[in-house]
Amino acid sequence: MDNYKIIVKYDGTRYKGWQIQNSTSDTIQGKLTDILNKLTGQQVDVIGSGRTDAGVHAKGQVANFHATLPSEMSEKDLLLYINKYLPMDIAVTSLKKVNDRFHARFSAKSKSYLYRIYVSPVSDPFEHKYVYTYLDQTLDILAMQEAANYLTGCHDFKSFCGNKKMKKSTERTIFSIDISEKYDQDILKEIDIVYTGDGFLQNMVRILTGTLMEVGTGKIGAVQIPQILEAFDREQAGFTAPAQGLTLLEVNY
Amino acid sequence: MDNYKIIVKYDGTRYKGWQIQNSTSDTIQGKLTDILNKLTGQQVDVIGSGRTDAGVHAKGQVANFHATLPSEMSEKDLLLYINKYLPMDIAVTSLKKVNDRFHARFSAKSKSYLYRIYVSPVSDPFEHKYVYTYLDQTLDILAMQEAANYLTGCHDFKSFCGNKKMKKSTERTIFSIDISEKYDQDILKEIDIVYTGDGFLQNMVRILTGTLMEVGTGKIGAVQIPQILEAFDREQAGFTAPAQGLTLLEVNY
Repeated sequence: MDNYKIIVKYDGTRYKGWQIQNSTSDTIQGKLTDILNKLTGQQVDVIGSGRTDAGVHAKGQVANFHATLPSEMSEKDLLLYINKYLPMDIAVTSLKKVNDRFHARFSAKSKSYLYRIYVSPVSDPFEHKYVYTYLDQTLDILAMQEAANYLTGCHDFKSFCGNKKMKKSTERTIFSIDISEKYDQDILKEIDIVYTGDGFLQNMVRILTGTLMEVGTGKIGAVQIPQILEAFDREQAGFTAPAQGLTLLEVNY
Repeated sequence: MDNYKIIVKYDGTRYKGWQIQNSTSDTIQGKLTDILNKLTGQQVDVIGSGRTDAGVHAKGQVANFHATLPSEMSEKDLLLYINKYLPMDIAVTSLKKVNDRFHARFSAKSKSYLYRIYVSPVSDPFEHKYVYTYLDQTLDILAMQEAANYLTGCHDFKSFCGNKKMKKSTERTIFSIDISEKYDQDILKEIDIVYTGDGFLQNMVRILTGTLMEVGTGKIGAVQIPQILEAFDREQAGFTAPAQGLTLLEVNY
């Protein structure tokens, strides 16, 4: 058996997330598994770098799987075969044979996520499915950046974990949180937040974003972030920002 | 009454094109008309620079309308009001009061359309609705460019008109046809064709594209283009390329 590493790009709108559920047809992992099982006649285990929630998008999700290909099928043939049977909103953009020990989840060194907050009352017809449109209040970017500085580093992020029954360690390191503004004819159109860290808990990026937004509206003070972290209590952090604004950008090994 | 010029951006996927039909809810003009009629209590005539077919997109469609606004409603207020009631896949990106004589169709000096042919077997999940995916044969870009040169200039484009009963002049001037290639990791991903002209007949850009593609596959020789033009016969030109690959980029005045 060989071990294959793939990079997967998807528009998550139609799917119940990465991870296989009861039916295989409504998840990304399910779609890939179906195609590989049919091709190889084996039960293929497609291992993602991590789950993405229902509605979350990816430009560079990484997965691996062990399989024995039909003879004379090259890596390129396999890439084309998978893409031929995938729906148009999922694509495998890269495929290569890797060392047997490569594991998409355990070998990952860092991940980057992008959260897009669209703040213009003029929608973008070609992007609206990939942003969270937020028109209620002006967001104070400087305060958000200050709060982001408190969140950066190695912390126990239990307060930012969507799974209350999480038994494993909730310690993670966030290497950077970059907040940038996009303008259109001098009017603020979008606030983009890129999170890079060694790993993220369930819903963590969405809760971080909701918390930063509540700092942006003044509901939470930036200086309160250390207390929120130390509370180990999900209730102390902000709301869970909607899935559709979130995109997994890349996973590094 | 004042005359307002608007720029409209839309994802045409869900719509039966620009022009109002029986129901107002499934066309772009219909959506705009409904909102303006309700606001002003008048019957507002929204004049587009031209129709776009069902499924065609626009980044810079232009329209104008004459209306009397409720008192104290500024241009900015009107822009926000319209966008508030438009669905997310349609946006008015600019609105300004113009000279009474401005007419979105009659005053137009040139228009640019983009046709996107996606030739990679690896789909782009975020762009697939805005391209025509064509994987059957390799396209000879040089031959297509040669054919495009024959099409540029002032010609009677009757052979490229989708309306066989067209009674008015079918003479149009194409200022330029630019064919460009987009690569991803040295592999050709997309062929983009930008057409700029003083006006285009019904389905003309799609028939021009279908014809250039048939030149690209060798079904039609580039040197045959002058004969096709002189035949004044729709049957001589190539197929009508699908609507979803077409985007109206801009209209100049």
